[in-house]
Amino acid sequence: MSKAQGVNVAIIGVGLVGTSVISQLTTVPSLASSVHIVALQNSKKALLAGLGESRIAISSQQDWQSKLSSSSTAALPLPQLTSHLASLTKSTGRHTVVVDNTSNDAVASFYPSFLGAGLSVVTPNKKAFSSSLDLYKAILESSAATASNPRPALLYGESTVGAGLPVISTLHDILATGDEVTRIEGVLSGTLSYIFNEFSTPSGAPQSFSKIVKVAKDNGYTEPHPGDDLSGSDVSRKLTILSRMIPSLLEKLPKGYESVPTHSLTPAPLADVKSGDEYVARLPEFDADFQSLNEAAKAEGYVLRYVGVIDAVSGEIKASLEKYPFSHPFASSLSGSDNIFQFKTKRYSNRPLLVQGPGAGADVTAMGVVADLIKVAERRG
Amino acid sequence: MSKAQGVNVAIIGVGLVGTSVISQLTTVPSLASSVHIVALQNSKKALLAGLGESRIAISSQQDWQSKLSSSSTAALPLPQLTSHLASLTKSTGRHTVVVDNTSNDAVASFYPSFLGAGLSVVTPNKKAFSSSLDLYKAILESSAATASNPRPALLYGESTVGAGLPVISTLHDILATGDEVTRIEGVLSGTLSYIFNEFSTPSGAPQSFSKIVKVAKDNGYTEPHPGDDLSGSDVSRKLTILSRMIPSLLEKLPKGYESVPTHSLTPAPLADVKSGDEYVARLPEFDADFQSLNEAAKAEGYVLRYVGVIDAVSGEIKASLEKYPFSHPFASSLSGSDNIFQFKTKRYSNRPLLVQGPGAGADVTAMGVVADLIKVAERRG
Repeated sequence: MSKAQGVNVAIIGVGLVGTSVISQLTTVPSLASSVHIVALQNSKKALLAGLGESRIAISSQQDWQSKLSSSSTAALPLPQLTSHLASLTKSTGRHTVVVDNTSNDAVASFYPSFLGAGLSVVTPNKKAFSSSLDLYKAILESSAATASNPRPALLYGESTVGAGLPVISTLHDILATGDEVTRIEGVLSGTLSYIFNEFSTPSGAPQSFSKIVKVAKDNGYTEPHPGDDLSGSDVSRKLTILSRMIPSLLEKLPKGYESVPTHSLTPAPLADVKSGDEYVARLPEFDADFQSLNEAAKAEGYVLRYVGVIDAVSGEIKASLEKYPFSHPFASSLSGSDNIFQFKTKRYSNRPLLVQGPGAGADVTAMGVVADLIKVAERRG
Repeated sequence: MSKAQGVNVAIIGVGLVGTSVISQLTTVPSLASSVHIVALQNSKKALLAGLGESRIAISSQQDWQSKLSSSSTAALPLPQLTSHLASLTKSTGRHTVVVDNTSNDAVASFYPSFLGAGLSVVTPNKKAFSSSLDLYKAILESSAATASNPRPALLYGESTVGAGLPVISTLHDILATGDEVTRIEGVLSGTLSYIFNEFSTPSGAPQSFSKIVKVAKDNGYTEPHPGDDLSGSDVSRKLTILSRMIPSLLEKLPKGYESVPTHSLTPAPLADVKSGDEYVARLPEFDADFQSLNEAAKAEGYVLRYVGVIDAVSGEIKASLEKYPFSHPFASSLSGSDNIFQFKTKRYSNRPLLVQGPGAGADVTAMGVVADLIKVAERRG
């Protein structure tokens, strides 16, 4: 097989993040020339470069969206997509990368096959990294098994935690250079950051807990069912992803995000409420409970924050509601729906390394995806 | 030339940072196998792998230090080092990287020749990136001229700004994915961070300015002559490095760090004092001036911070003493000798991306160097 410059990219999932990924890839001149989009598909339809073609012609967002919606090609089942991409890798002489912009379990479960076929994977999808430990190991093993390929398959997932913020890459560099992580602690959910930044301030709560959740829902800051945020499961997924990167924790914990001790903020009587609207309507019944927690913290000089903690020394990993003094960066420096990550290591012991900023949103999530894709192109292009 | 796995590394400068780089390269198992140290030299002596050899044998820090001090080989002039490394590249079949751990102008001026000879360069040395624009352009051009080599030469300098903190790589990713920087603002000097975090607090100054500078000097937080910190030139060098990465600013500003408007904190009558001790002894004469600035800021609800600012919209770049409200992250979240960097971009517009932590120190500087070296090895190994 002859080697050509650049990489091929197959994009699965063309919602908000996928659309922004395509926009970045087609409007930045250096990327438009080196990254060849050879496949686009959503759950229904596909646009595919044929075997004689170098890429799909895309002139604008409107262009690919109308071509995709009028395409007569049904979305390829993943095994067929894989063989088509393997053929394109041969015919173009370029390495091929699958970008999974879905949050789909089925796509994540297919990563071992993508990687095993020599395709790199770049994704903001948390599922592959936070679900069962067996899947995670199968993914790492499939990737490692391509080591003797001319261009071994790579796996990148910066945007799985903190979107475009340099979180995964920072933890990677800390570990790869031989530093030892002692503790990672942070506000890992933008939604829960917003809710507690509003609710728990040094001067108390300007509004009731339920009112703040309702405003967040009305503004689209929460999932359609706010219980999906208040459960803390997004935080435990991110904790699972980060802790699995730390070799000493990989075998011990966690078997999956469901094994991370996670404090759900959903009051027990609302646990089975299926409707998001009903959930929000009934939440005021529990305002007094939240308010008394908040007042107790404030009386001691603390605010409440919903955080994720990885104590790499004791092995404890948890998602929970904790108290921080007013002067702590999680209290004093945080606002809006910012994420914040604090890394304590052997080298960063007296003073931690902090990364803070918006940890969600289509454009910054896409930025993390595209930055990863550039790294693959630099290594395999 | 046959291609072998891994990279060769030639280390120039074996002081605190160089020693920590060697330690990280020889103790992390994956690095010890893939990174071959083929040359070590300080200003006097050298240890070199011969043409039949794969690497210098290093069993411990004591080992290489005693071998180097008893070496009968004088430090190679850089042109001779370059040709020896070119020969080693051929004989080993591996790409070769020069790691410059000095803060030497002469070594920095030689980067165009290293790169032109196909050697990658990794460095924490600010000089190459912040001195004359002509040198900087010659460096970029020499690197670009190797594009048709089988393994083009690469250039990395994460530790030139903020040591191991993800600053250069974050700015790189922001730009490479097509985002537009509007403003970078930060506390870029650990020494000036410490001095103003101590001096300017919401409750005023616990000690006089001169006393805080004296304590900093006595504890080794300043250069031997504290005027070298208080001049702000370290901040203007870092501003030059960052602003040159932004294409719209490269041609406009700055021609070198000396062209960045820089507010020196050294009182005019002390400008010519050559002795650090005399400088510190006379600084109390000016305490009233610093105190009145501090009190005026405090009365308005502000603290003083010595910052670097890049306004990419107006093109203004400056190193200066500015006021920040008590609630600003530069006031509320900063302490010790931390650096903090705030990136505002088109995507990170409402809420900036923040990176904070220790921005100096041998181990964290070496971490940035080694992380860069890993990136070169991933791309050229």
